[in-house]
Amino acid sequence: MRKSVLHSANRAQFNLGTVFGILGSFIFFLGFALLIPMLIAFIYGEDVWHTFLYSASIAFVVGGALYYSFKPEHELRVREGFLVVSLTWLFLSLVGALPFVISGILPSYTDAVFETMSGLTTTGATIFNGTTSDGFVNPQIESLPYSILFWRSLAHWLGGMGIIVLTLAILPLLGVGGMQLFQAESPGPTTDKLTPRVQETAKLLWGVYVAFTGVEFLLLWVHPSMDWFDAINHAFATMATGGFSTKNASIEAFDSVYIDTIITIFMFIAGINFAMHFRLLKGDVKSFFDNREMRFYALITFISVIVVSTSLWLFNQYSIGSAIRYGSFQVVSIVTTTGFGTDNYEVWHTLGAFFLFLLFFTGGCAGSTGGGVKMIRWMIIIRNSFREIKQIVHPKAILPIRIGDKTVDSDIQRTVLSFFVLYLMVFGVGALIMSVMGYDMQSAIGASIACLGNIGPGWGEFGPTDNYAQIPYIGKWVLILFMMIGRLEIFTVLLIFTPTFWKQ
Amino acid sequence: MRKSVLHSANRAQFNLGTVFGILGSFIFFLGFALLIPMLIAFIYGEDVWHTFLYSASIAFVVGGALYYSFKPEHELRVREGFLVVSLTWLFLSLVGALPFVISGILPSYTDAVFETMSGLTTTGATIFNGTTSDGFVNPQIESLPYSILFWRSLAHWLGGMGIIVLTLAILPLLGVGGMQLFQAESPGPTTDKLTPRVQETAKLLWGVYVAFTGVEFLLLWVHPSMDWFDAINHAFATMATGGFSTKNASIEAFDSVYIDTIITIFMFIAGINFAMHFRLLKGDVKSFFDNREMRFYALITFISVIVVSTSLWLFNQYSIGSAIRYGSFQVVSIVTTTGFGTDNYEVWHTLGAFFLFLLFFTGGCAGSTGGGVKMIRWMIIIRNSFREIKQIVHPKAILPIRIGDKTVDSDIQRTVLSFFVLYLMVFGVGALIMSVMGYDMQSAIGASIACLGNIGPGWGEFGPTDNYAQIPYIGKWVLILFMMIGRLEIFTVLLIFTPTFWKQ
Ligand SMILES: [K+]
Ligand SMILES: [K+]
Repeated sequence: MRKSVLHSANRAQFNLGTVFGILGSFIFFLGFALLIPMLIAFIYGEDVWHTFLYSASIAFVVGGALYYSFKPEHELRVREGFLVVSLTWLFLSLVGALPFVISGILPSYTDAVFETMSGLTTTGATIFNGTTSDGFVNPQIESLPYSILFWRSLAHWLGGMGIIVLTLAILPLLGVGGMQLFQAESPGPTTDKLTPRVQETAKLLWGVYVAFTGVEFLLLWVHPSMDWFDAINHAFATMATGGFSTKNASIEAFDSVYIDTIITIFMFIAGINFAMHFRLLKGDVKSFFDNREMRFYALITFISVIVVSTSLWLFNQYSIGSAIRYGSFQVVSIVTTTGFGTDNYEVWHTLGAFFLFLLFFTGGCAGSTGGGVKMIRWMIIIRNSFREIKQIVHPKAILPIRIGDKTVDSDIQRTVLSFFVLYLMVFGVGALIMSVMGYDMQSAIGASIACLGNIGPGWGEFGPTDNYAQIPYIGKWVLILFMMIGRLEIFTVLLIFTPTFWKQ
Repeated sequence: MRKSVLHSANRAQFNLGTVFGILGSFIFFLGFALLIPMLIAFIYGEDVWHTFLYSASIAFVVGGALYYSFKPEHELRVREGFLVVSLTWLFLSLVGALPFVISGILPSYTDAVFETMSGLTTTGATIFNGTTSDGFVNPQIESLPYSILFWRSLAHWLGGMGIIVLTLAILPLLGVGGMQLFQAESPGPTTDKLTPRVQETAKLLWGVYVAFTGVEFLLLWVHPSMDWFDAINHAFATMATGGFSTKNASIEAFDSVYIDTIITIFMFIAGINFAMHFRLLKGDVKSFFDNREMRFYALITFISVIVVSTSLWLFNQYSIGSAIRYGSFQVVSIVTTTGFGTDNYEVWHTLGAFFLFLLFFTGGCAGSTGGGVKMIRWMIIIRNSFREIKQIVHPKAILPIRIGDKTVDSDIQRTVLSFFVLYLMVFGVGALIMSVMGYDMQSAIGASIACLGNIGPGWGEFGPTDNYAQIPYIGKWVLILFMMIGRLEIFTVLLIFTPTFWKQ
C-alpha cells in the first residue's frame, strides 16, 4: 500500500520550489546547530565565538529566505525527495563551512567545504595538519580552538543522525540500492505519507542514538586521560562512525587500553542497524540476535580480528595482548568505516595490511551510521554467487536467495549486484582522477575508497598518519563529491545527473 | 531444441570413467604435439630432442592407457563436460611440463607446470630469468634451446585453439558465464549432439586461426630482425594472446616500428571473436562491422590509446610518434591480455600507468583468444548500471537491455553481473594469498590479476621487466590454479569444487 502511493504518477513530476523550500528549512535549522559551538567558545573564552554567530545568522537569513520564498506545502513527491536528499549534504556543507573561513582558520573555502562535508558525511578525512597545493599551511589539530574542534565533531554527529533516518526511513521508500529490504524493520507508524512516518521513525531512532552517545561519553569521561570535552567529541565521532579526533594522533594519543576498548565496543555498536538497537532496547532480544546481517557483521569482524591480530603477532612481533588490542581496534574502525586509529597499518606485514585493505570494501550494517557497501549487500552478493554456480547444474530450477526467513526479491538481488558494480566503477574513476593528479597507485586507490566509503584515512600519501591538505583544489572537489556519492548510496546522487531524471 | 537435450535429466548424472577416457585421448594427442619441438631440436641439432621423445612416449602411454581403460563411448553429458573442461588444462599442463624437467632445464616440477599452464592458458607469465625461493637459478630466456622456446610458443598456440572452441562451441552449451549469448553466432551445424557440432565448429574456426597465424608469420619473417624461428614463435604467441617471447626483453628487443605495428595489429585481431572473423572471411562484411561487441572493443581500445599516449607525451616527454607507438602497443597488449611489452609501464606517469592498470580488468571480445572479463560483459554491466538508475525513476517499467538488435535475457544479465562480482572476489582472494607470502600490495594485486586475467606481466615485483621465479612453491600452485580459473571463465572450475556438483 505504502509503496503504491510513492510509485504513483506523481513520481514523474516535481517542483524545484518545494525542494529549495525544504533545503531552506534545513539550512535554517543548521543555524541553531551553529550556536552550540558558540556556547563552547564562550565556555573556553575563545574569540572565535562571533564567527559562529555570523555563520548562524547567514544560515538563518539564507535558510529563512529560501523557506519563505517557496513555502513548501504539499507532501514531498518522489523525485523531489531525491533532489532534497542529494542537495541537503551539499547545501549544509557549503553553509557549515563558514566558521572555518570567517574565523580565518582555513584560508581556502574549498578546504572548509571539504572538512565540513567530511564531517557531515561521517568520513573524517581532514585537511588540517598539512600544507595545501598553493602553499597555505593549515593549522595543527591541537592548535584549533575548542569551538572549532567541537563543530567538526558535531557535524559528524548530526550527519550520523541524518544517515540513520535516511537509510531506515527515506531510501527504502525511494527504492534505492536494495534498501527496500528494510522497510519492514523500521519502527514508527506504517502510514502512506512520507513526512509523518519519517518524523516518527526519526524520533524513535534518534532516542537510541542519543542514549548510546551519552553512555559512551560517560564511560570515556571517567578515564583520567579524557576531560569532558575530549569525551563528548569522541563520543560524537564514534557513534557517527566519523573519525575526527581532538588529537592529530587520533585515539593513539591517549594510549589507554581502557579507552581503546570502550571506543572499539562503541564503534562496533555504531555499525549495527539502529532499528535493531531500538528493538533490543524495547526488550525484543530475540529479533536482535536473530538478525542475520548483525550476525554476519559480527562473524566478519571476528574473523578479521583473528587474521589481523595473528599477522601482527607472527609477522610484526607484537605481544599477543598488543596484537589483539591494535588488531581489533583497527579492524573495527575500518569495518564500521569510522577511521579512528591507534596504529599505523601501513607499516604492518602485508597480510594484516592487505586484509585491512579488503575491509575498506565492507562497511557495517545497513541502517547504522557506517558507510561503504555494507554487510547485507555482501550477504546477498555472496549468496548470489553460490546460487549462480548451483544454477549451472540445475539450469531450470528457481533458486531463491534467503536471508533468515525472508526471500530476497529478484529485483532486489539485481539492484544489489548493480549497486556493487557501480560502487566499484565509481571507485575506479575516483582512483583514476587521483592518478591524473600525479598520485601513485596506492595513494590514488586509497583516497578514492577512503572518501567513497566514508572511512577517512586511506593509503600511501593519505594513510593514517597523513591528511588531505596537499591535493589540488579540483581534486578536493572531486573527493567532496565522492564523500557525498558514497554517503547517499550512490544511486541517489548519480540519478540526478541523468537526463531521465529531469524529463517531465 | 538443442538446449533441451543438454538440460535433460542426464545433467544430473555422470560417469568418471568417460571423463578420464576423454582426458586420456587429449593427453595422447599432446604426445603428437610434443613431437613437433623434437623436430625443431633436430633442425638446430640440439641434444634435448630425446627429452621430447621421452615426454611424448609418456603422453602416448598414459593417454592411451586412460583411453583404453575407460573407452568413452556415449555422448558427453553436461556434468562430464564440466569436468573434462576443467581437468583438460590441468592434465595437459602436468604432462606438457615434462620436457622442462626431463631436460634438466628446470629443476622444479612446480616451475615446469607453472610455465606450461602459463603457456596453455595463453597467460605468458614466466619463471625463467629468475631465482626460485629455494635458490635455483632458472636459465635466461636467451639461453634456452630453440626446441624448448618453441614448445612454450606451441603451448600458447594450442591453448588458443582450445579456447576458441571452448568459448564459442562448448561453454555456450554448458550455459557458463552468460556465454549463451553466442550460441547463435558460431558457425557449424546446429545439431543436438555435442560432439559433431563441436568438431565441425572447431574445424571452421581453426582454419581462420591458422590463416591469421600464417599471415602474421610471413609479415614478421620479411623483417630482417626476425628469422623464421622468431617469426613463427611470435605469430603463435600473438594469435593466442599469449605473450611468451623468444627474448627476455620481449618485443622491445627487436626495436622496430614495423614489428611493433604488425604485432599491435595482430594482437588486436586476436582480440576479436573468431566467429566474426569467420563471417568476414566468408564475405559477410556487414555482420562483422555491425557486431556491437567488436565496435565497443575498438572504441575502448581507441580511447585508451588516446589517453595513454597523451599521458606519455605530456608527462613522460615522449615525442608524439613514440607516445603513439608505445602507448598503442601497450594498450592493445593489455586490453587483449597478450602481455607482450615494448616499454616498462611501471615507470610511466600515474595517469598512463593507472589507466593501463584499469585495462587489466577488460579483456578482448568473447570468442577471441583473450582472457579477462571481456567486452561483452562490460557492455552488459554498463548498460545495466544505466538501466538500474533509470529504473528508480520508473520503478514499474520493464526496461530491457539491448545489444544491437538482441535483447539480453534477464537471466543472462544476472549471470554476467555475478560473473563480474565473482571474478573480483577471486581476484581479491588471490591478492590476499600473495600478500600472505609477504608481497607488497601492488605486487600482490598485480600477480593476482595478471594470472587470473591471463595477461602475464603484472605490477611491482611482477612487472613487465620481472618474472615469477621468486614466488614460494605454494604460491605458484595458487597462481597455476588462478590461470586455469580465469581461462575457463571461473564458473567452470569453481563449480567442480561445490558439493552440489557431485551430488547424484
Ligand atoms: K569515517
Ligand atoms: K597473455
